[in-house]
Formats: sequence, C-alpha cells, structure tokens
Amino acid sequence: MTNDPSRVGDMDPEEFRRQAHRLTDWIADYLAESGKYPVLARVAPGDITSALPADAPSHGEPFETIFADFEKILLPGITHWNHPAFFAYFAITGSAPGVLAEYLSAALNVQAMLWRTSPAATELEGVTLGWLRKLLGLPSAFEGVIYDTASISTLHALAAARERTVPSVRQLGLTGRDALPRLRVYCSDQTHSSIDKAVILLGLGQESLRKIPTDAEFRMRPDALAAAIAEDRSAGWLPLAVVATVGTTSSTSVDPVPQIAKLCARESIWLHVDAAYAGVAAMVPGHEWILEGAGEADSMVVNPHKWMFTPFDLSVLYCRHMNIIRAAFALTPEYLKTIEAAPVRNLMDTGIQLGRRFRALKLWMVMRHFGADGLRARLSEHMRLAQTFATWVDRSSDFERLAPVPFSVVCFRARAASPEDADRLNERVLEAVNSTGEMFISHTRLNGRYALRLAIGNLQTTEAHIARAWDLLREHTSRLRGAD
Amino acid sequence: MTNDPSRVGDMDPEEFRRQAHRLTDWIADYLAESGKYPVLARVAPGDITSALPADAPSHGEPFETIFADFEKILLPGITHWNHPAFFAYFAITGSAPGVLAEYLSAALNVQAMLWRTSPAATELEGVTLGWLRKLLGLPSAFEGVIYDTASISTLHALAAARERTVPSVRQLGLTGRDALPRLRVYCSDQTHSSIDKAVILLGLGQESLRKIPTDAEFRMRPDALAAAIAEDRSAGWLPLAVVATVGTTSSTSVDPVPQIAKLCARESIWLHVDAAYAGVAAMVPGHEWILEGAGEADSMVVNPHKWMFTPFDLSVLYCRHMNIIRAAFALTPEYLKTIEAAPVRNLMDTGIQLGRRFRALKLWMVMRHFGADGLRARLSEHMRLAQTFATWVDRSSDFERLAPVPFSVVCFRARAASPEDADRLNERVLEAVNSTGEMFISHTRLNGRYALRLAIGNLQTTEAHIARAWDLLREHTSRLRGAD
Repeated sequence: MTNDPSRVGDMDPEEFRRQAHRLTDWIADYLAESGKYPVLARVAPGDITSALPADAPSHGEPFETIFADFEKILLPGITHWNHPAFFAYFAITGSAPGVLAEYLSAALNVQAMLWRTSPAATELEGVTLGWLRKLLGLPSAFEGVIYDTASISTLHALAAARERTVPSVRQLGLTGRDALPRLRVYCSDQTHSSIDKAVILLGLGQESLRKIPTDAEFRMRPDALAAAIAEDRSAGWLPLAVVATVGTTSSTSVDPVPQIAKLCARESIWLHVDAAYAGVAAMVPGHEWILEGAGEADSMVVNPHKWMFTPFDLSVLYCRHMNIIRAAFALTPEYLKTIEAAPVRNLMDTGIQLGRRFRALKLWMVMRHFGADGLRARLSEHMRLAQTFATWVDRSSDFERLAPVPFSVVCFRARAASPEDADRLNERVLEAVNSTGEMFISHTRLNGRYALRLAIGNLQTTEAHIARAWDLLREHTSRLRGAD
Repeated sequence: MTNDPSRVGDMDPEEFRRQAHRLTDWIADYLAESGKYPVLARVAPGDITSALPADAPSHGEPFETIFADFEKILLPGITHWNHPAFFAYFAITGSAPGVLAEYLSAALNVQAMLWRTSPAATELEGVTLGWLRKLLGLPSAFEGVIYDTASISTLHALAAARERTVPSVRQLGLTGRDALPRLRVYCSDQTHSSIDKAVILLGLGQESLRKIPTDAEFRMRPDALAAAIAEDRSAGWLPLAVVATVGTTSSTSVDPVPQIAKLCARESIWLHVDAAYAGVAAMVPGHEWILEGAGEADSMVVNPHKWMFTPFDLSVLYCRHMNIIRAAFALTPEYLKTIEAAPVRNLMDTGIQLGRRFRALKLWMVMRHFGADGLRARLSEHMRLAQTFATWVDRSSDFERLAPVPFSVVCFRARAASPEDADRLNERVLEAVNSTGEMFISHTRLNGRYALRLAIGNLQTTEAHIARAWDLLREHTSRLRGAD
C-alpha cells in the first residue's frame, strides 16, 4: 500500500492526487445531478448513529474505505441544500467557483487573525467588501468585515450599540451599578430570532427587546416605534438600538427604513439593518429602493452565503463606526504583537473570534466568475420564477397567496372551509409534498395562520422545477381534501 | 466558450470538471511542496490592495483568468500556515483527508441548524465527538458540540456559568437590578485573551476577570485562587467561573486542574478547562495526566483544528450540563419548528449561531484516515521533535530555555549581557530569521522578558526542518552579536 496512515506525516502525495481526482469526478457529477437525490433526507432519527461504530478506529484506513462509507451511510442522511428543488427556509447555492475556492482555502489553511499571518486574506477581504458595497449602493463610510453568520454579525452590531451608549461597559460590565438604567432594543414582530439570542448573550435580557407591531404587509410601523420609544423613555428605559429588516424570514417584507432611519437619527439610537437575505437584490436595476435609507444606518448585515451563491459560511457586516467595534473588542496580548512597515488592519481587532478562515477567497471567485451583470441576471431570474409561481397561486381557486412577493419567496396556502381547517390541511400538504423527495418547502405563520413558503435561491432551479412543485402541491392537496 | 458566466445557472458542469481537475493537480503539488514557498509572506502593507481593481468586474470571467490572478497577486501575499517550517503561534495542519472533506462539504453545502436539514451532519457530530471524548479519557457525562473557534466555545461555557448562577439573566438581563452583585471570573495571568473578550461580550466587564498569579513554571497557584475567592466573597463579589488552562498560549504550561477542580466543587463555581491546543495530547500513552481533573470540570474546550490535523475551523466544547446552554439559548421561531418521528437534537439549540457548517465530516475523515494509533504516533513525533530542539538549546552556551516543554512548543532565547540587551537582541533575531523566508517563529514574554517560541504542529515537519531552524537561529544570532 502506497499509503500507510500509521506512519508519521500526511497522506502520501500521489495517493492524495489520486483520491482528489476521484473525488473531483464525484463532485462534478453531484453538482450536475444533485436533482436526482431525494432532496429531504429519508433516514429516521438515530439511523446514522447506529450505522457507525461507537469508537474511533485504532488503525488508519484508506480513503476509499472512508469514502465508501460516506456514500453508503452518510449520503442517505444528507438533506440536499444544493438541490434545485430545495425551496425551504432560504434556498442557497454552493456554486462551482465557490466550491473551488473553498477547496483551495482548505489546502492553504490560512488563519487570518493578523495582517502578518494573512496579508492576502486581510486585504482581499477589504477589496471584495468594497466591490459589494458599491454594487449595493452603500456609502464609502461603511467599512466591512466578514464573519461566519448573520447571528454573529448582528451580535457585533448590538455590542457596538451597547459600547456607544454605555462606554464603561467594557471595563465595568453591567452588574452592580445602581446608576445604569434598563436598556431597550427595538425590532418588529417579524424579526429574526438571532436578535433575541444577541440580547440574551449581551446581558440585556429578552425583556429588553421590544417587538413593534407591523402593518398588513408585515412591515414595522414607524408610528408604533416612535410611540414605544417615547413611552420607554418616560418610563426610564434607555433606548439602545433599532433593528430594521429588509427581507424578513417569514414573508420577506421590507421595513420602511427611511422613516426608521430618520427617527433613529433624531433620537440618537443605533440603527442596524438586517438585510441578510434580501440585501443583495439592491444590485438589480429597479430594486435599488430596497436599501433606501440603509445608507443612513449605523450598521447593516448582508449574507453572500444566502442569495449570492457563496458556499456557507460568509456573512458581511458593514458598519459606519468600526472604530466602536474595535473599542469594544481590540485586545492584543504580547504573543500577537507585530511590527509592520505601515499601519495594517488586523482582523482579530474587529470581533470576538480570534481565528478567522480565508473566506474572502470564495467571495472573490464568485464575484469574478459571474461578474456584476451575471449576479444581477441570476437574482432577476430567481425573482421572475417567484413571480411566476405567485401568478399560478393567484390564478388558482384552490390556493391563496398570503403576502406580497418582493423577492424570491412566496407565502401561500391551500384554501379550506375555515382557518382551522386550512391550518390542518396545509400542515398535511407540507408533509406530503416533502415526503415525495422531489421537493422541500418549509412553513411559517402569518397573522397566526399556517403558511407554506416556497423559496428560490439555487442556481440550478429552473421553471421546470417550480412547475413540478406546483403540480405536486395541487395533486397532494386534492388527494388530502378528498380523503377528509 | 463552453462557459458563459453571464447566462443564468451555475458554471457548466464539464467546465467545472476540467477546472477542478486542474486545481486538484495544483493543490496536490502544493501539499507536497509547500516548503518551497517563503513561509512568511513578503508583501508590504497595501501591495495586494493596490494590485486589485477597485470595482467588481461587470462581466463574468473564465476560471483560468481568476486562478492566474490568484497565483500572480494573492499567492505572494499568503503566509503559509500549511508549511513544514511554520513554527509560529500554534503550528497547524490542513491535512490531506481534511482538505478532501472540506471540498466535499462545500459541494454539499449543508446547513446543520436542524436535524431535519442535516441528519448526517447532526448525528456524525455526536458520533465523532464520542470517539474523541473516549480517546481523551473524558467521562460520558460530557456532551460535545462543534463550534468554529475556541473563542466561541469558551464564550458559551461562560454564558452557561452565568445562566446557572443568575437564572433570570435570559429574561431580565443584568442591568437596572439593584439586587444583583458584581460577578467574578478567575483565570491565571497566562490565560488566553479570548477569556477577556468573552467577559466583555457577556456584559461582565474586564474588571470581573481576576487574574491569579502563577508559579515558576507559569501554572495557576491554587492557594492564590482560594485566597482570591475568599477575599472576593467577603467584599461582596459573586464568583461565577474559573478558567483553568491545559497548555497556555505563551509557554504551554498546565494549570493544576485536580486541585482547582476540588476548590471549584467546594465553592460551587463553574470550572471551564481551556485545553484548546494541548488537550489532544492526552490520547498519547504516558500523557493521560494532562487532563487529570478535567473530567470533574463543568466544561472543556479542545480544538482539532489546532493540533489534530483538521483544517481550520473546528473547535469542540464538551459540557457536563449542555441543558444549561440550551436553557440559555434555545429559541424556536415558527419557521424553524419541525415534527420528527422521535426526539432529535437540533444543533441550533446549543448556541448563538443559527447557521452551522458540516464540520464533523472533516473530523471523521481525519480520525478514520489516521486512526487512533496514527494520531498518537504523530503527536508523539511532534513532542519528540520539540524535545530534540529543547536539547539543542540546553546544550548551547549561547541560548537558554525559558520554560518546560510538556508538549510541542519550546520557549527560549539567545543570551546577552543584560536582560535588556537580550530583549533587543532576540527581537532582532526574530525579524532576521523570519525574513529569510525559510522559517517563521513568533514570540511572547515570560516573566516580563522577550522569549522566542518555536511551535511544532505541521505533519510535514521533520527533524531536518528544525535542524535548519536551529542553524538559522545560531547564524543570525552570531551575526547580530558581531554587528553590535
């Protein structure tokens, strides 16, 4: 055997080359034909665990053996996010140029904590985030930084808001201080759960998060926000931040950011815009309006791993006051001090994570491979497909649409005699179509009622895929209605 | 052109196959010959930025063009972490099986937030962390979870300690509550900066972090810890957690965990063990002692991306009370509710990040490819190389060793007439050897004096590499001494 894993050193180089070429062919087939797999894994809880041994092997094994087990044991337990009929949550794409970039990044294994440990990773992050900022029409005062997830981006935004409002927090913390009032964060009742988790982690408590009611199209009501702030101030709360959303998770509604931004400016409250999913659409001609007012915000998150064809994970935080994030977190122990010929940016200063992957590489390869026009064409096509599906829903007497479709997500449901019947029916429709293996959708609740959600975001999704989804939905709805 | 990036859809499948095979050959060469590159990037600040355009390309570009720019512009700006003469910080390896796993993971693009969205990723995480737990001799009460970095693992451990001590924190937060005393966290004066960042983020403030003095071998003094806790209690502080370190960043010292664990049990204080770098060495026969007492801890972090040949990032938190982490953070909005046939683990419940990559795949491939014996052989070899280098230092009249060498890191310096002269000389030696391009070491301060640090952790590092490093160190030290 050319490859004896029990010796020291890495895998034999020629063995790596052979295995990597074999894997390349498997991946090329997979990317071309991922649609042939059942999109939702069909295993039962515990199946994978019970198929695997309870202990690590004592002796090393050839890569063929390991890969054969991947195909036999793990692959049936994969829910295929890179499948053209993955319509759940927010549909995403690990695009071909992005996959190549991740492969290269793993081989380089760069850790981008300091400029010195990663000049190319550090500077490419600045360059690519400049490109994206301009494509989205955001002001040059917005400095960008890459984190793993929107949860972490938003956490940093709210930590910065806390730092600005209570500058002593870094040194003294929040406890045991009589003079410190309760702090308040505002978002709509449609806002993502990551905001709740952030206020918990920051020690503000869920009570600090006041959820503002929304209008008939699920958009935060600025009048209700203004009233809440006024009421809180007179009750002794100190407003800390407002989180406005461009593309909410349930219905992709767009909060009225221009009005909210004006209010925040007047009240001196940090405005964070969560544009994690939909922000990228602002690069499409005719859609610039969706980020109107976001340029006035203090910070904004947008996730290229959601709807910009970049393999998971890559979230971008733009911030008008990155110096405040640095003031909150920069801290250089002796073993990380470096002396350079000119001032440099050390990425570890902009966050709580010391270690950082070379994530800018995939963003760069994706943006260059598709180009700005290519990105726009793909986003437009996804919005066209969503409109097409929405039209089918609107024209059907058996279904109804439950929210506007500004982007690539359609919320709808099968009609029934009563709202309660509709809830029960649509829950069963969801399970039925998902168990076909041909499509995967998820649900939400809008105005308290169960809603089906069809989200488009995979580069291989075509009109044939949504037509098949529509057929399956109608077929199973009829069958389930007949069975009642 | 077979690949027109301006059309909709992903890269043409056959174009992907061709490009991926070419990239595979490049990566195979790179992994075999990374030692031929200057290990530390030789670019000046701004070089990369100025070589790249300020705007994204309008039109998509062929992958060849992009990769040519990678080689021409970015590669000179790479500091080669996967280089056999990378001896700085903690040296790491993006091993061949790990690189293949990351490639596959990028193509699958699984997002492991819910069991349903990733049965294989969710269950493989449980299985591989069980394997690792047993290899390290940790108790079955330790449930494991994978995060990106030790910073995030430790943050969750301290968040859990906060949740246990102040159960109302999730709802009410820490502010505006007269009854809440100041909270205290303890660690040694050698502890990693991630602890400081965690207490800042959690709203405890840096003042809450009390750094306990260490003994002559840089280990936390349990008597000093006991005295600090007693003093704090009588001054009205509420002790929250102790962080003990197994393998500190400066000198890889090992805190006396058994005594600290007894003290924490008596005082009912959460004990978190930071074994991010050195914990894996407990699997090597004769080294079981290093995790003695860690089984009594409440939580422990160990990073396979540091010294277990797993491409960055993959940090593991083991916790005896994962239910407390869930109590702190679990929160399921309607759009993430699922119904399964049996109770399942949803990974989003164990943390602040909703999105999670399929990281267990690389851990599984690395552990299977090398096997337990192969991992032990490689860790032993790195410790043998460090002992060899330490012996050279000890035998030289021109150098002195500054700390014990329990693992794979040697702290030493060139001798000089006075401590101040030694500081200046060794700073210059560091810059001189690093600018050769043949090796990369970093520094720290021990007892206030500048110390060189040589860290071994790359699978391709052999005795020849450390011998060359020793030659370069002696040669440049002599030259710099002569120049004075």
